[in-house]
Amino acid sequence: MEIANIVVVSPMYKEIQKLIESNGLQKNFRYLVEDEVTPDDLVWADAFLAFNMKSNFDYSRLKWVHSLGAGVDKFLFKKEWDERVLLTRTICSFGQRIAEYCISYILKDLQFHDQFQELQTQHNWKQITPRLLSEQKVLIYGTGEIGQKTAKVLSSFGVDVYGVSLSGQEKEFFKEVIRVDDHLSQLSQMNYVINTLPLTEQTEGMFNHNFFNELSNVGFINVGRGASLDEEALLKALNEARVKFAVLDVFTYEPLPEDNPLWNHSKVSITPHISAVTTPNEAVDCFIETLKNIEENKPLNNKVDVKKGF
Amino acid sequence: MEIANIVVVSPMYKEIQKLIESNGLQKNFRYLVEDEVTPDDLVWADAFLAFNMKSNFDYSRLKWVHSLGAGVDKFLFKKEWDERVLLTRTICSFGQRIAEYCISYILKDLQFHDQFQELQTQHNWKQITPRLLSEQKVLIYGTGEIGQKTAKVLSSFGVDVYGVSLSGQEKEFFKEVIRVDDHLSQLSQMNYVINTLPLTEQTEGMFNHNFFNELSNVGFINVGRGASLDEEALLKALNEARVKFAVLDVFTYEPLPEDNPLWNHSKVSITPHISAVTTPNEAVDCFIETLKNIEENKPLNNKVDVKKGF
Repeated sequence: MEIANIVVVSPMYKEIQKLIESNGLQKNFRYLVEDEVTPDDLVWADAFLAFNMKSNFDYSRLKWVHSLGAGVDKFLFKKEWDERVLLTRTICSFGQRIAEYCISYILKDLQFHDQFQELQTQHNWKQITPRLLSEQKVLIYGTGEIGQKTAKVLSSFGVDVYGVSLSGQEKEFFKEVIRVDDHLSQLSQMNYVINTLPLTEQTEGMFNHNFFNELSNVGFINVGRGASLDEEALLKALNEARVKFAVLDVFTYEPLPEDNPLWNHSKVSITPHISAVTTPNEAVDCFIETLKNIEENKPLNNKVDVKKGF
Repeated sequence: MEIANIVVVSPMYKEIQKLIESNGLQKNFRYLVEDEVTPDDLVWADAFLAFNMKSNFDYSRLKWVHSLGAGVDKFLFKKEWDERVLLTRTICSFGQRIAEYCISYILKDLQFHDQFQELQTQHNWKQITPRLLSEQKVLIYGTGEIGQKTAKVLSSFGVDVYGVSLSGQEKEFFKEVIRVDDHLSQLSQMNYVINTLPLTEQTEGMFNHNFFNELSNVGFINVGRGASLDEEALLKALNEARVKFAVLDVFTYEPLPEDNPLWNHSKVSITPHISAVTTPNEAVDCFIETLKNIEENKPLNNKVDVKKGF
């Protein structure tokens, strides 16, 4: 496939432009924010880089669309994709970033950061023995790039890591991978549950009352997509101590509305969708590598399976 | 060496007794708390297990003293040790425990836990990009069992780990080991500094004004010994932002006196000497293994060099 004309749509397009220009690519570029995109841009371009595909954009004359994020639900969820157009996504340090995010909150719990902070305010020297990672069981929903990297880091500490995937196929760093149809079966023995799944019709609302009813005193971390979580079911589970704490980085509506009750819950930690930020540097590196692979007809490890939705 | 009679002195001697008895050792035991020890016990015993050696105890007729902790300053610091008596110390999961303790506080900083918690109270959706471990430089004082295990864990995340030791001898998992005489030379480039050193005459008051004056915006973690730290110098360095935060698990006087100003400093986290707790299980495992090695004249990896003091 030959790519000559490329449209880049991003709120951070100026940084991206600078980085692309420093690479000396012999292509024609147009750099825009989303509201400036015209039908002419979509006719002119061979390739389109963006976080999002607005529903009124006619992308059928493009050869290639590249998502600047790891998630592609903004391109595929509840939409039909024209399979003649190649869709790829950004894969970079997301796995490492999400692994560090998750392990930071698990260690916060195991090392009793909150309890020692509270004791400190009382000048109270009261010993509590931190618990070791090697005594924990963690279930990760999603065994792809991100889930597997998180499993790798956790298992290096001796954590027993279980996975949930569509196929249930065994994967390195997981003690066992459970098929998604069976996912409720082993929840009761877990200490922490992490969601890394993309948003698809199958994962929408997956973490619901049925799911939470199986848990007992679990730390729940959502770094996948907000719409996979039934917030009301989570709040109920927190109040019943089925969930001991929740760490949420993604939400159905972002920014999280100011009046959402999650903000005020003492056992909920809210972060503003930062567990896997794409830095301009990484976005450009991934784009250039993908472009090179496309032009040389090499296999693409970041091609989206538009049927599966990720 | 043959060991028949053993005195065990510990506030948790009942748990230790239960575990030792379940191992069916054919030895004679006396289990006591420190205040109950009599001169007769010290004459009767071949071996003495304790956290401490009171200065009025005559241990010269013992064959072997085994420290129930990893640190042996309570046996050696500013004391002469009778070298005819073998001194060993407990080595178990300390390295792993201290590594997880340290990394939990480094990740708390890199992942902006405090900042996001503050933003949450304001219902404020403000993105800050967490920083990766692989972009950090960490200096660890001490390259022994504990320092090296911490270096192993940190370097597995891509951290550049530097060490400080008496000899400056290269060690696995350290990018570079600096001789203690030279230790101020590379401080200015570090993001985090961790002390794991034992208390000896050389390490007493080591983290003083000269040390802190070399730092710039560093996270300082003390899991070694409290008397290595000049608390006043630390407080000054915190106020000058040479130190961005301090995490202290050990203190010159423990429990930390209620009126110590460290309790109230917003950039100091106090934990009550819990980063490397000896659980009764681990203490007994280490004791039994050491006993076996002694009776079989095998090399001892936990024999204390009483001249060096650790």
